[in-house]
Amino acid sequence: MSDEAFMERALALAERGRGLASPNPVVGAVVVAGGRIVGEGFHEGPGTPHAEAVALDRAGEGARGATLYTTLEPCDHFGRTPPCTRAIVEAGIARVVAATGDPNPIVDGRGFAALEAAGIELRRGVLADLAQRQLRAYTKHVRTGLPFATWKMAASLDGKVAARDGSSRWITGEAARLDVHRLRGAADAIVVGAGTALADDPSLTVRDPSYRGRPPLRVLVDARGRVPETGDLFDGSAPTLVATTELAPPHRREAWRSRGAELLLYEPEGARVPLARLFADLGKRDVQSVLIEGGPTLAWSAVEDGVVDTIVVYLAPKLIGGDAAPGILGGRGFFPIGGALPVSIVSVDRVGDDLRVEADVHRDR
Amino acid sequence: MSDEAFMERALALAERGRGLASPNPVVGAVVVAGGRIVGEGFHEGPGTPHAEAVALDRAGEGARGATLYTTLEPCDHFGRTPPCTRAIVEAGIARVVAATGDPNPIVDGRGFAALEAAGIELRRGVLADLAQRQLRAYTKHVRTGLPFATWKMAASLDGKVAARDGSSRWITGEAARLDVHRLRGAADAIVVGAGTALADDPSLTVRDPSYRGRPPLRVLVDARGRVPETGDLFDGSAPTLVATTELAPPHRREAWRSRGAELLLYEPEGARVPLARLFADLGKRDVQSVLIEGGPTLAWSAVEDGVVDTIVVYLAPKLIGGDAAPGILGGRGFFPIGGALPVSIVSVDRVGDDLRVEADVHRDR
Repeated sequence: MSDEAFMERALALAERGRGLASPNPVVGAVVVAGGRIVGEGFHEGPGTPHAEAVALDRAGEGARGATLYTTLEPCDHFGRTPPCTRAIVEAGIARVVAATGDPNPIVDGRGFAALEAAGIELRRGVLADLAQRQLRAYTKHVRTGLPFATWKMAASLDGKVAARDGSSRWITGEAARLDVHRLRGAADAIVVGAGTALADDPSLTVRDPSYRGRPPLRVLVDARGRVPETGDLFDGSAPTLVATTELAPPHRREAWRSRGAELLLYEPEGARVPLARLFADLGKRDVQSVLIEGGPTLAWSAVEDGVVDTIVVYLAPKLIGGDAAPGILGGRGFFPIGGALPVSIVSVDRVGDDLRVEADVHRDR
Repeated sequence: MSDEAFMERALALAERGRGLASPNPVVGAVVVAGGRIVGEGFHEGPGTPHAEAVALDRAGEGARGATLYTTLEPCDHFGRTPPCTRAIVEAGIARVVAATGDPNPIVDGRGFAALEAAGIELRRGVLADLAQRQLRAYTKHVRTGLPFATWKMAASLDGKVAARDGSSRWITGEAARLDVHRLRGAADAIVVGAGTALADDPSLTVRDPSYRGRPPLRVLVDARGRVPETGDLFDGSAPTLVATTELAPPHRREAWRSRGAELLLYEPEGARVPLARLFADLGKRDVQSVLIEGGPTLAWSAVEDGVVDTIVVYLAPKLIGGDAAPGILGGRGFFPIGGALPVSIVSVDRVGDDLRVEADVHRDR
């Protein structure tokens, strides 16, 4: 098997740490001796061993003279666990194949340098694109302090998120709804707007039996305090944060707090919560990845405020139509047409009877 | 090679008759002797030889003892050309492989029966699904007298066909626009509404250098006579038909006629042209296939009046947004959500940077 094939395995392992590793990066590692995998592992979260350490431990004596595949540059510093470079050298690894470097300033090349200094053969950049995509939330957060935001929406093929009378359940099928729980499990926080909270009373929990991570932080954006504290967002099943403004009546704010929610109070901008500031605050709390599940109004604020990195659109095989029925992206909209926001379509898949389109947003235009 | 492989070739040949064969079906035929193709052909239109005759003629003496693959049941009657069954028998064909039967009442099994009566080995139903899809316009027209209608639209990924200020050129890229000319070339008639005619002044001609068929009939739907006779629809480059009502001022109707257009005058239904009646009239003129290129208002009329069979959506990698920006399907819309019109997604392809989604409409619900 080729370096690429073993790296694919390491990338798949890394993905199993999604929802567990944050604020650490998801990382997978494989130890190969004589063309066979003799140990493998992934990082399961802060305070637990790094992927390389897990794989080396599983390999035991088999690691001597073997090749270690890792999706990310090994660390060379003492954190909550000892440096991986030392473990690699001590295990007798002869060759390291890494997908990509660690942008974290406390690593950033030091790991690679330590391996080379120890006389270990090093190959870098194997499946680097895939690894960088896998690590994009971590990388953005490390570099900018801001979370990586995925805006998810479900609509009919003609782009409507509800009929003109507001009815909207269920537009997409079972498989797409399960897929959303996978997205939720991968996120550190889930954001909804007041409109969606009032219409759907969502609990925003991860209903996926295989999910082993923490429940994501639930973030309600409600500038005017329209959402009562009796909703499922305040059921205590996961931490809840309300981003609001002084436009929200004091009794509502008090009621939210009494239900265990934390409040972030912002100066309103055009009667809205300034999302760029909210997202910066989330980043300061080590929220690396955000899933935006809001309706068309919150989506417009998020797009306009430039906080959206990527979008996942589920398109159901049906037509709703209606000039008055809400579309995916509401608000004022871009105009004239030349001002439309370009995106890059990354993938198109069938999910049950629905389509899932993933696209990256181009911020620099 | 298998029967299926030769039938695939015959289906590909048949497709070359698209835009030429109507009101006859597109048909392809291949003569195979000793595992090799010794003759092939497709039907190029009324008055020209049928596909089987072309293939047999090319094969000459090579047809003796050979197998004939044909996408459609051979005819057994004298029309503008002699019956294909006779040509097949006379050429000495030993075996016929056919994809599907001809639903036309003057054929409908008689062709197969004649071949079997002549002692020719017959295999039916090879790639029948593909052949039936290829012949669906012909089949619908033969069975119901109505044309098969494809509704085509181009929108941003969020389902907007224009920005809120009405600007819309160009949402999709070059490749998608070329693909639309392929759709036009495959249609007997192209239908637009007054809104699109006023906004875009389209000429609705087939700008595809490889296209050899007739220019499709241009059909303007304009109940109130809003579109002036000075537009490109009246440039004489192709026949134009205006479907209108007595709500259109007499001077406008006269002006249209003076520019060579034919008029169909309908009793208005809710100030609209009754599309079901218009489509029935088009069917009576041997229009088998219609491409609907109208905007969201005409689209809603077409969907509501039940004349749409299939849809082709081009989705561009951009976001437009805006509550006031028009979506793909306008009008009143379906509501509540349970009333949405189900469709079946048939294919999803990348066309340049855009996506093309094809879906069949379910009429029976």
